[in-house]
Amino acid sequence: MDVSQLGEFGLIERLTRIVGAEGSPDLVVGPGDDAAVWRLGSEYLMATTDAMVEGVHFQPERARWEDVGWKALTTNVSDIAAMGGTPLFALVTLALPPETPAEAMDALYRGLSESAREYGVAIAGGDVVSAAQVSVTVSLMGRAAQRDGEPLVLRRSAARPGDVIAITGTLGDSAAGLRLLQRGVPADDPIVQRHTRPVARVESGRAAVEAGVRCGIDVSDGLLQDVGHVCGMSNAGAVLRAVDLPLSDGLRAAFPDDALELACTGGEDYELLLIGPATAVSRVPDVTVIGEIVKGPPRATLLDGAGSEIKFAHAGWDALRP
Amino acid sequence: MDVSQLGEFGLIERLTRIVGAEGSPDLVVGPGDDAAVWRLGSEYLMATTDAMVEGVHFQPERARWEDVGWKALTTNVSDIAAMGGTPLFALVTLALPPETPAEAMDALYRGLSESAREYGVAIAGGDVVSAAQVSVTVSLMGRAAQRDGEPLVLRRSAARPGDVIAITGTLGDSAAGLRLLQRGVPADDPIVQRHTRPVARVESGRAAVEAGVRCGIDVSDGLLQDVGHVCGMSNAGAVLRAVDLPLSDGLRAAFPDDALELACTGGEDYELLLIGPATAVSRVPDVTVIGEIVKGPPRATLLDGAGSEIKFAHAGWDALRP
Repeated sequence: MDVSQLGEFGLIERLTRIVGAEGSPDLVVGPGDDAAVWRLGSEYLMATTDAMVEGVHFQPERARWEDVGWKALTTNVSDIAAMGGTPLFALVTLALPPETPAEAMDALYRGLSESAREYGVAIAGGDVVSAAQVSVTVSLMGRAAQRDGEPLVLRRSAARPGDVIAITGTLGDSAAGLRLLQRGVPADDPIVQRHTRPVARVESGRAAVEAGVRCGIDVSDGLLQDVGHVCGMSNAGAVLRAVDLPLSDGLRAAFPDDALELACTGGEDYELLLIGPATAVSRVPDVTVIGEIVKGPPRATLLDGAGSEIKFAHAGWDALRP
Repeated sequence: MDVSQLGEFGLIERLTRIVGAEGSPDLVVGPGDDAAVWRLGSEYLMATTDAMVEGVHFQPERARWEDVGWKALTTNVSDIAAMGGTPLFALVTLALPPETPAEAMDALYRGLSESAREYGVAIAGGDVVSAAQVSVTVSLMGRAAQRDGEPLVLRRSAARPGDVIAITGTLGDSAAGLRLLQRGVPADDPIVQRHTRPVARVESGRAAVEAGVRCGIDVSDGLLQDVGHVCGMSNAGAVLRAVDLPLSDGLRAAFPDDALELACTGGEDYELLLIGPATAVSRVPDVTVIGEIVKGPPRATLLDGAGSEIKFAHAGWDALRP
């Protein structure tokens, strides 16, 4: 059997079983969430890692290297934001063919550096290795807020029936931006920039944990799939209302027929899904309530205005499937 | 200009300048050492990352996947050891073609898991991405011992003229093992295993910082090159005596003519170089004194029994050069 038959999530589950769940008493959050959480002295350390591979996550003939660098760090910052944490410092592993132009890597690092300044992250080290494709793997460490010695974190497993589901920003713009990029729209188009220059919602994640929200995830694979991850980890269902999804005017104008599908399955928006009691969620600024957690099988259901389910051919991104 | 003209270390220096040295007041050790050190509350966190790439660091037709997994984590443990720290938890990024057999990745994770148990490391998370080659990128976090609130660490920059240079174990076996592997010697040969199953010297690193040693590095690129890194960062020279280098009987028997060159330039031994005042170094068990730090240009000089310099065509490994 090859790994594409397992898919990304099947493979991760299989490999996680091999390394064992025993862990350490200091491992507060292990595999399966946006970041790991580790108790270190009186602090709670977060750690996450995300890679961008040439030809898979970006096309060298279209992408600007500055944007690749920006996105490589910012997607990691989003993972820390999705746990309610504050990013601290990063390690960067650069894999590249020996014939890569040095100027391209300069540009990649300028983009990394811009993101590092934006989010207050120190680049503390890394590794350089030779490879057939360029790839950038970032590990990012962060810290959790605390109350009475307990870490305040957003877990995928903390959704409870009756919780409302809210989202920051708008959905689908990144996938729309990718389509426009593929059609030759220039890199400075505002929708294209939603794909190439995503923003990490660090303030929203922090505001959420302070407000008493305990469940969250960032939209990286696609709304339906990411809500599905929460459902699986929380063993509950979710109902989302299509009419309530926040879609930008730009998205509706560029893709009037596909706007909803892009918003539900597109991924890479890096908006935060925040899930909790309505009173807690209502204290987080600038979010839109789009559904609720319900008892039932662990899956996300999207309803139209008449209460009928809307389905799409693909729910979202799987790293090992086309 | 392509990156091979800069070489690994030239590229790292260039990119480090772009991200800037400003850092944070909590960044105790930044780019250029075996691991970064970050002050988190009352603790000192260490973080390092190392990647292994198919066709570069291992040949899939010769390597056993268990060994690749073992080595991917153990080389990171060695970086923490080379800072005098204790490893805590790791993140693992697996890049792989979708057609990779799941059984190969199972084996890789069994090897990772063996190393994790050996060194008391929890596997806390990671990422899976699609790529043309298999690669495993590990990030490992650790903690530094402390005395009076100050971290006890082994820095590359802390060598001083008059310090002695000592090494754990024996040198050159890994490079000899690689040659034997390339000639078809089976994987269970003890010298081959020095290449495929390196050992991280965590106890030696800890003993060294407790004994008052403040300078160290692990031998990953090759003895002369790694001592050269210390010379560069400490702005001092080093003299090594060929006659004092610890060579195993197996190495001398297998490569009687090349044993010294393999020991000096082979790399991947993951033995620790410990550098400090003779009284401090003498308190570390099971090390061999092989030279000393001297005033002068920042380079490592290898002397024969008559006091003449011995030179080799290559000093060691550069990731971006053949």
